[in-house]
Amino acid sequence: MCGTDAPDAAGPVSNGSHASKANTASSPYQNVNDFISNVARFKIIESTLREGEQFANAFFDTETKIKIAKALPVSSPQSYEDCKTICGLGLKAKILTHVRCNMEDAKKAVECGVDGVDLVIGTSSFLQKYSHGKTIAIIKETALEVIQYVKSQGVEVRFSSEDSFRSDLVDLLSLYKAVDQAGVNRVGVADTVGGATPRMVYDLIRTLRGVVSCDIETHFHDDTGCAVANAHSALEAGATHIDTSVLGIGERNGITPLGALMARMVVTAPDYVINKYNLKALKDLEELVASSVQINIPFNNPITGFCAFTHKAGIHAKAILANPSTYEIIDPAIFGLTRYISINSRITGWNAIRARCEQLGLKMTDDEVKEVTAKIKKMADIRPLAIDDTDSILHSYHIELQKKQAQQV
Amino acid sequence: MCGTDAPDAAGPVSNGSHASKANTASSPYQNVNDFISNVARFKIIESTLREGEQFANAFFDTETKIKIAKALPVSSPQSYEDCKTICGLGLKAKILTHVRCNMEDAKKAVECGVDGVDLVIGTSSFLQKYSHGKTIAIIKETALEVIQYVKSQGVEVRFSSEDSFRSDLVDLLSLYKAVDQAGVNRVGVADTVGGATPRMVYDLIRTLRGVVSCDIETHFHDDTGCAVANAHSALEAGATHIDTSVLGIGERNGITPLGALMARMVVTAPDYVINKYNLKALKDLEELVASSVQINIPFNNPITGFCAFTHKAGIHAKAILANPSTYEIIDPAIFGLTRYISINSRITGWNAIRARCEQLGLKMTDDEVKEVTAKIKKMADIRPLAIDDTDSILHSYHIELQKKQAQQV
Repeated sequence: MCGTDAPDAAGPVSNGSHASKANTASSPYQNVNDFISNVARFKIIESTLREGEQFANAFFDTETKIKIAKALPVSSPQSYEDCKTICGLGLKAKILTHVRCNMEDAKKAVECGVDGVDLVIGTSSFLQKYSHGKTIAIIKETALEVIQYVKSQGVEVRFSSEDSFRSDLVDLLSLYKAVDQAGVNRVGVADTVGGATPRMVYDLIRTLRGVVSCDIETHFHDDTGCAVANAHSALEAGATHIDTSVLGIGERNGITPLGALMARMVVTAPDYVINKYNLKALKDLEELVASSVQINIPFNNPITGFCAFTHKAGIHAKAILANPSTYEIIDPAIFGLTRYISINSRITGWNAIRARCEQLGLKMTDDEVKEVTAKIKKMADIRPLAIDDTDSILHSYHIELQKKQAQQV
Repeated sequence: MCGTDAPDAAGPVSNGSHASKANTASSPYQNVNDFISNVARFKIIESTLREGEQFANAFFDTETKIKIAKALPVSSPQSYEDCKTICGLGLKAKILTHVRCNMEDAKKAVECGVDGVDLVIGTSSFLQKYSHGKTIAIIKETALEVIQYVKSQGVEVRFSSEDSFRSDLVDLLSLYKAVDQAGVNRVGVADTVGGATPRMVYDLIRTLRGVVSCDIETHFHDDTGCAVANAHSALEAGATHIDTSVLGIGERNGITPLGALMARMVVTAPDYVINKYNLKALKDLEELVASSVQINIPFNNPITGFCAFTHKAGIHAKAILANPSTYEIIDPAIFGLTRYISINSRITGWNAIRARCEQLGLKMTDDEVKEVTAKIKKMADIRPLAIDDTDSILHSYHIELQKKQAQQV
């Protein structure tokens, strides 16, 4: 199981969303930045091809892996090269391997010629008891031996605990401190069961930030719907790296989704995200992965869910037409998408209908628009209307108006 | 647009999940409870029939509304009676109405004979400028007049700001303080554009908790994937009520989903949630609403997503078989569901295969299980396997074993 780092990629980007910038500036809270916060300098560990393979429906053949790797919006030429190697194409690239934290696995990894070894061990009482059966003292002793060995072979080494949030805090800190002093390049914290909350994450990462000097990678499962928020909290507390996968696919209901994290971070740190990532590639990438693992993009997916930029209530539509930032925290154009103002419902308003009339080139006075709005609302109260239905009502009303005017002339 | 409170309902529940209790006890973080925290005494405002109607696909006719109201897991006889009235059936019940904060709307609401009026006004600079055009001073003056009028009519009154997190903090607190002193029953805070983070929420609600003495209701949109975590943070900071809808349906990509919030809260406060809510009704309820608005339940939905309790990686499956809490923060049985250990992939392990053999009644030694596991992993490396395929491999291997044994005898 391998992962790739692609922190330095930058595709062609549309710089400068007025909406995001305005939103950021307008929030009294956005400006409270701690010096430890990494929200505007985070890196992503894209692990669709590692964690993603643990998703129930996933079976990635070589061709699919290459397709996904090519499409990753964080993908740099280097990360693509990495993936080619991961796919067994035998080319020179940087390879990282996840292995259990024991000498046997580490030796195998080093013998394979990897560039980096990520040592993983469960530290919760559950995993100590039911998975590997080792005490924290033995885990620490073994970890230090293995780290020393891996370093002696000139190979990069990282150390991650599993189920970190159900591990004893003192044990955990003592373990991380020891491996940091032993010279690991990065430590990893994982909410393996998906039960952590943002405040737990902030507390643990902030404490850890004062204990180790190396980078901190974080990994959040989404069982309780907090994987995106937990990633954000981790960055605020000083974590440097976030694990993601496309659409969050992974074990059980998955991990922090790349797209939702982009939605979150583009609001928190618009300049950094817009300049670093090719956000317009997101929709195609998600569609590729969704079709590879035979799932639908969730209706409520941030950014790419089918109604993420659909405005329906009349009072919302009115304000959106005056200024999209009133009811949009993200400008859809940043992701190459457009907004849609729904008018075919009983909760529509006449401002939205007027905008639609303008789109259709139908000239009406405000009073006329209000009259046809009442007709549409009445109709929509009886049965669901499609956009075609609404347009038909507008057209036929407009024809009636023209007839009347012709009669008057 | 109406909403119903149903805080006191309790269906038949299976008490005492060993898993949840054990998990809670085992976390060093779960025990940090502030005295202001309401995580173990929160109430839900179920607004599928209000916010939900703002969802792009929603058209609820009377029959559908009654069906949904009947199926709500938080539903009490009273809340059903409420819904009947909301549906225009003319029976005595408590009715709350959302109206814009002006005398005209308030008078209409009171004339309708409602029991409660929820006054809503946008307080962000965006909404002040592009929606209603009022300054904070005018908003406050109007609000106080309207509140006095509504109270004088013997009607319950609540006051909510819209887009609270992009409003000036001092303006907001001054407004809430004034309406609290004027005697509103509850104030509402809304992340109308879905851009807030858990720390922003905690800061604002905690500050507000010290400013007003009435209940605090909160409403979170999910545009940046934080709606569940924000609800949790709000409760930690002293909010009393959370708005939800089934599957989160609402304007744009929606609000805090009822099911995901239940997943979150059953981990944070298992006893409270298990005893208060009929969690086994969740799946049917979600299916009813999904079919009413023609959407699929997202693949990654907490609890009810098709793979929420599917375990795939060999190392996970082994531990899950020894103790489900190792890789499950929630016991699926609490929701009337079961876990599934996937064995038809190349990342399966022999412990999972052994468990499947036991389920199928196929007796094998550990070495034999390891041999057939290798066969399955090899096969799964070539093409995706269905569970039937894997079972066939196990059966045919077992038949071969029996033949060999027969020959030896």
